[in-house]
Amino acid sequence: MTATKLAASDIVEHAIDRFTLSACTDAAPATSLEEFQQWWDERHRSTTFEVSEIPFDELRDWHFDPDTGNLAHDSGRFFTVEGLNVHVPGTTDWSQPIIFQPEIGILGILVKEFDGVLHFLMQAKIEPGNVNLLQLSPTVQATRSNYTRVHHGASTRYLEYFVEPGRGRVLVDVLQSEQGAWFWHKRNRNMVVEVTEDVPEYDDFRWLTLRQLHKFMRTDNFMNMDARTVLACTPLARPTGIGVVEPCPPFLDALLRSYDAPDTGAPSRHTHFEILSWFNECKSRCDMTFRLVPFNSVVHWTRTGRELVDDDRQRFRVIAVRVGSANREVGSWTQPLLAPRGEGLAAFLARPIDGVLHLLVQARPEPGLLDMVEMAPTLQFPLADGTVAERAPRDTPFLTDVLNAEPSRVHFDALLSEEGGRFYHAQTRYQIIEVGDEFPVDVPPDFRWMTVGQLMHLLSHGHYLNVEARSLLGCVHSLL
Amino acid sequence: MTATKLAASDIVEHAIDRFTLSACTDAAPATSLEEFQQWWDERHRSTTFEVSEIPFDELRDWHFDPDTGNLAHDSGRFFTVEGLNVHVPGTTDWSQPIIFQPEIGILGILVKEFDGVLHFLMQAKIEPGNVNLLQLSPTVQATRSNYTRVHHGASTRYLEYFVEPGRGRVLVDVLQSEQGAWFWHKRNRNMVVEVTEDVPEYDDFRWLTLRQLHKFMRTDNFMNMDARTVLACTPLARPTGIGVVEPCPPFLDALLRSYDAPDTGAPSRHTHFEILSWFNECKSRCDMTFRLVPFNSVVHWTRTGRELVDDDRQRFRVIAVRVGSANREVGSWTQPLLAPRGEGLAAFLARPIDGVLHLLVQARPEPGLLDMVEMAPTLQFPLADGTVAERAPRDTPFLTDVLNAEPSRVHFDALLSEEGGRFYHAQTRYQIIEVGDEFPVDVPPDFRWMTVGQLMHLLSHGHYLNVEARSLLGCVHSLL
Repeated sequence: MTATKLAASDIVEHAIDRFTLSACTDAAPATSLEEFQQWWDERHRSTTFEVSEIPFDELRDWHFDPDTGNLAHDSGRFFTVEGLNVHVPGTTDWSQPIIFQPEIGILGILVKEFDGVLHFLMQAKIEPGNVNLLQLSPTVQATRSNYTRVHHGASTRYLEYFVEPGRGRVLVDVLQSEQGAWFWHKRNRNMVVEVTEDVPEYDDFRWLTLRQLHKFMRTDNFMNMDARTVLACTPLARPTGIGVVEPCPPFLDALLRSYDAPDTGAPSRHTHFEILSWFNECKSRCDMTFRLVPFNSVVHWTRTGRELVDDDRQRFRVIAVRVGSANREVGSWTQPLLAPRGEGLAAFLARPIDGVLHLLVQARPEPGLLDMVEMAPTLQFPLADGTVAERAPRDTPFLTDVLNAEPSRVHFDALLSEEGGRFYHAQTRYQIIEVGDEFPVDVPPDFRWMTVGQLMHLLSHGHYLNVEARSLLGCVHSLL
Repeated sequence: MTATKLAASDIVEHAIDRFTLSACTDAAPATSLEEFQQWWDERHRSTTFEVSEIPFDELRDWHFDPDTGNLAHDSGRFFTVEGLNVHVPGTTDWSQPIIFQPEIGILGILVKEFDGVLHFLMQAKIEPGNVNLLQLSPTVQATRSNYTRVHHGASTRYLEYFVEPGRGRVLVDVLQSEQGAWFWHKRNRNMVVEVTEDVPEYDDFRWLTLRQLHKFMRTDNFMNMDARTVLACTPLARPTGIGVVEPCPPFLDALLRSYDAPDTGAPSRHTHFEILSWFNECKSRCDMTFRLVPFNSVVHWTRTGRELVDDDRQRFRVIAVRVGSANREVGSWTQPLLAPRGEGLAAFLARPIDGVLHLLVQARPEPGLLDMVEMAPTLQFPLADGTVAERAPRDTPFLTDVLNAEPSRVHFDALLSEEGGRFYHAQTRYQIIEVGDEFPVDVPPDFRWMTVGQLMHLLSHGHYLNVEARSLLGCVHSLL
């Protein structure tokens, strides 16, 4: 282990080369697929865990503030459920409940080289909101309240590598937003830290290669949202080990060319600078005003003994649950969760332009985003009661291209869970859909075609890609 | 004029080379210093302009909302004066009035090449809050309300180059924050657009070189804040025309080396990636919560017939003024202004490290900043009643290094105005102070030594340098 960092250029190139190597090798992972399956089954068996919906008055250590109607923890930490008001000039304001969690938590993956291949230390972690409870998660997933021990639980394993300087080499470190529809200004610190020292492999943790992780993205409800966003922030060079055996299918060939860094190598429809300029233009056009308000001032929502719910019963509910578990920080607890209805949809249309695959990116305002507008998938339809086909407005751009796509052109299709620590059974269908030369290159003002390399480059800064776009970028890697 | 943009790499390199050329040449500006002086004097003479403080009830088209106590324009546009609440765990909340202006305006400078040298079209512009009324300003300085004509005034000259695609080549385009102590989440779009077509030079406008502009930075209350921030966002390559005649003074030599892009050329104390990682760490540590609240809930502040004022009369006042003018969009108007007390201070300590000048940058939380923490000068002391020496806490880091600096080491010292459209007589003393090898390289956790090149590189994105740091970076260029 070295106590000092490499030069940034070294780190990044170094990391990229080795991430690529890791992504492209099928040889000798530290944990074979069979071993992994056996371990995963054991994790399931060793888990005694129950989640049950309870009335609000059975919440322990949580209360509704009598003045504001906000739902808060008695310690003043963790998060609150408050109100959000949306003002668009010339229209009637609307409002909804929203989760306010001002702390910046850590989503961290520890990496280490075994036999020349970088491995990622992943955790089998239970979250009360997951439909299947157990999902594959980052090494560390800790709110500040977690790691400053507000709830007096056990300490978080491996946390020291992410909070103590010099314990490893920081390869990825970026603050990224989370769901702007449900969170007010929520961000987490996405980190990858490399160690060379021996690290214990506790029962809930296994070392996996990036290639294994990318393949796991294709399994429904398996890689949790936090793992997906950290992996998305991990830069990859254009892979060199794939597609060299002729004939390389045209889609894969175009995809490989899409990994070049912006303004180098393969041509892109727009330059990096043009993308930034377009994005500023989109932000400037957005004249919505979003405000945090007391829940009491939210209209068309009601608090019953068991839920905060919209009068039309079409959006989401805020509920309370009791959670009993053997392997969480605290033996049993109660907490609020946000329970959406139905299933969300997030899809990238992907089109080769001059032989380079481009993804169709949307500049999309979301009321809870700190910077209001971020880059989103081509089509991002929120969770709502009923199917997207039933509920999406007919004039939603690219709706029919996504809903009526030929199955042979749907390169990725999986149902993945959103953060199970805050959301109850929130699942989104993620899709990557190829469109051909007949598809127009000119797109509406809020859209731009971008390469994978351009998107990865932006991910060294926050405020660019929203969490759905980051998840989908991770899914793109699984196509290699 | 070309309707399409160059490739980004072309633009930036192209721009940098020509900005450098422009910065370093004293030859043949389109407007000589004599011509400029004559024009400026004329501008003064042709101006009939009066600003007088009035009671709130003489404000036309503005009102205090009876429910919230907020001060607002009757149209619902422009800006409001509301309340800000600051919560720090374990301490008593405090609050203050704050200006909320959700629109993103444009601060734009038009550039054009004359005789091989880029020239910047600058405006002689009057703002009611300026101590001397008239200051040198960008070509365009327009809120969205301005250019969507909410106040039915004359159209903004040259605006079309900044809002109509293809009217010029966009060289700089970035959203940047403004005073986090007085503005809630305020940002403006800083733009530089190059034209090749003939452009009329109206009475209030003159073409000036970058070198002329940098030199003008040294004059008290001359370059307005908006011009300073746009110029700061304009990238400069390491100048090649300066210091080639031996002997180059050591400070200038170290300064020239400081202009290299990050992780190339001359060594820097930290890599670009290390700076980003440190900055995320500083943001994660910040556990303050800032909320916009109704003015009625602000404590220890009072509204009289003429001002909103803190009970101790030490911070600032919100007042109303009547403005009469011949050459503004509207003949005469009334508006609120925020009137600070005393004089602010913003200073960079600058130290050669391995022969490269580094500026000591502070990660500084400010309650009104969208991202809460931005990079600030080494010492940034707000405007307050009395002098900094009298009022700053004794344990303010680097206070005595700034206040007791030897005059020979103060390379820059000027009193510059903050935004005169919102602030009344707000002046800040900007200083760049050299420290020598005896000065420690190791600094407290909220501080980092950074090169000029590193700071310029970060300025292609928002949320990094606060407006005071950007102003000071512009002052650094004046040392060349």
